[in-house]
Amino acid sequence: MMRTGIGILGPAGTFSEMAALKWVGLKRMNLETEVEMRYYDTILDVSESILTKEVDYGIVPIENSLEGSVGETLDVLSGENAEPGTQMQIVGEILVPIKICLLALNNFERVKKVVSHPHALAQCKRFLRARCKDKEVKPVDSTAVAAKQASQSEEIAALASETAAAEYHLRIIEENVQDRDSVTRFVVLSSTNMRTAPTGRDKTSILIYLKDRPGALYDVLGEFAHRGINLTKIESRPSKRAMGDYMFHIDCEGHIEEEAIKDALAGIKKRVAMLKILGSYPMAEGL
Amino acid sequence: MMRTGIGILGPAGTFSEMAALKWVGLKRMNLETEVEMRYYDTILDVSESILTKEVDYGIVPIENSLEGSVGETLDVLSGENAEPGTQMQIVGEILVPIKICLLALNNFERVKKVVSHPHALAQCKRFLRARCKDKEVKPVDSTAVAAKQASQSEEIAALASETAAAEYHLRIIEENVQDRDSVTRFVVLSSTNMRTAPTGRDKTSILIYLKDRPGALYDVLGEFAHRGINLTKIESRPSKRAMGDYMFHIDCEGHIEEEAIKDALAGIKKRVAMLKILGSYPMAEGL
Repeated sequence: MMRTGIGILGPAGTFSEMAALKWVGLKRMNLETEVEMRYYDTILDVSESILTKEVDYGIVPIENSLEGSVGETLDVLSGENAEPGTQMQIVGEILVPIKICLLALNNFERVKKVVSHPHALAQCKRFLRARCKDKEVKPVDSTAVAAKQASQSEEIAALASETAAAEYHLRIIEENVQDRDSVTRFVVLSSTNMRTAPTGRDKTSILIYLKDRPGALYDVLGEFAHRGINLTKIESRPSKRAMGDYMFHIDCEGHIEEEAIKDALAGIKKRVAMLKILGSYPMAEGL
Repeated sequence: MMRTGIGILGPAGTFSEMAALKWVGLKRMNLETEVEMRYYDTILDVSESILTKEVDYGIVPIENSLEGSVGETLDVLSGENAEPGTQMQIVGEILVPIKICLLALNNFERVKKVVSHPHALAQCKRFLRARCKDKEVKPVDSTAVAAKQASQSEEIAALASETAAAEYHLRIIEENVQDRDSVTRFVVLSSTNMRTAPTGRDKTSILIYLKDRPGALYDVLGEFAHRGINLTKIESRPSKRAMGDYMFHIDCEGHIEEEAIKDALAGIKKRVAMLKILGSYPMAEGL
């Protein structure tokens, strides 16, 4: 039987793993017999594992509804670190609500120290102030590391995901302890050339580098506007050539096999210095 | 005599301090008798010190030519955390080349450990691999903290700024040890209502929230394009209301007292759900 390898940010129990599990469910894959999760330290490592075909898919965070875009993922998509001849495309996207839970082995009364990733601690400031005044609060490398530490001592509690609770056999003392709700969008990357088939509710992602003249971006956006194509995102990233020099990541509604999208992209190609099609894929549920 | 207070990210010796010193020089202020630097832990703390008039100016990083925008600064400019009735504007910008130096008290041969901020360590990977193989490499809270540690032991070297070398009386063992050169742009913020006078080489920064319909951004950019106004930057930020809902930061060439800019902004005001003018100010040298 064919096994599918999925590369994600590790260790087990991160929000990336929740995204991967959700995608495995959507694809009706069987976790026990068909799918193997592989854990990597950085987004760049995940992307390299895709390009070298160590894994079939990589799933990485691309934006959070409070924090904004993940620059490392946008840079990986631009392919600047990739060997010539290798390439990857976006074949899917997944939304994961960031639900932070307080986890411990036993009773919270026995806990003396609360640990988590600095971002998670920052996102739960109000909760920590209200409920953890008498405890020590300490940053660690990831929410999953925090859960691991909590699983080793009943004096330690972790702020981490539900998945981490299951992974490290911890009790969920309280859920949704974040100050503000947020959602993280993940993209599924693959080095396959096979195009994802249209579903009727798709998105297309492109990357462009403009010619240097006033109105260049305006003209590109006109190719979408004149065809009534809705943009779902436009994001600038440094071209890394000089301060003030940018590339643009643009997401629009529609599939590259639709006439309107095909025409718009052909029009854009004539107007820009570089156009890269990053993929056409089904829009995440909840968008 | 009137003293001018400038709020920056501390401690002494950070790249923020280099930006502040450069601005003091541009303004021909006297550092000894007129200017007092005040150090804060976060960008949000700097912005609060401006709004409460603890300082006259705040100087914060807004983008780096490799890493991209500093989300915290963009969010501070949107004013979402500000008390009603308080406000601030951008009154200037400064470019600082990020030149990382290897600093120590004495000879590098005696050094056993190299310390710095994780970002600085990441930016000097190649140098560390080539020249510091036999040394321990350890992350600390900031480049300035690293310099301070190096000033306390001849067995510790720091990767930090030139300013930090002067501040902590360290020798510059080697300069420009970063893998790739980059530049950081800082903005000067003030809560004064006084508008910065036109210089003939200015920039205007605005923040907009679009009406929800296809082509909304295209129409806004048209107000600039039809008047031949050059955009220097456009950046999306989460509105924090929902995934996929954004505000746009737009910088254009020109001063708000110029007719073309005035007309463009009047045209934009009619097209958007929200327009906030963040300031008109002299463009940094080197742009």
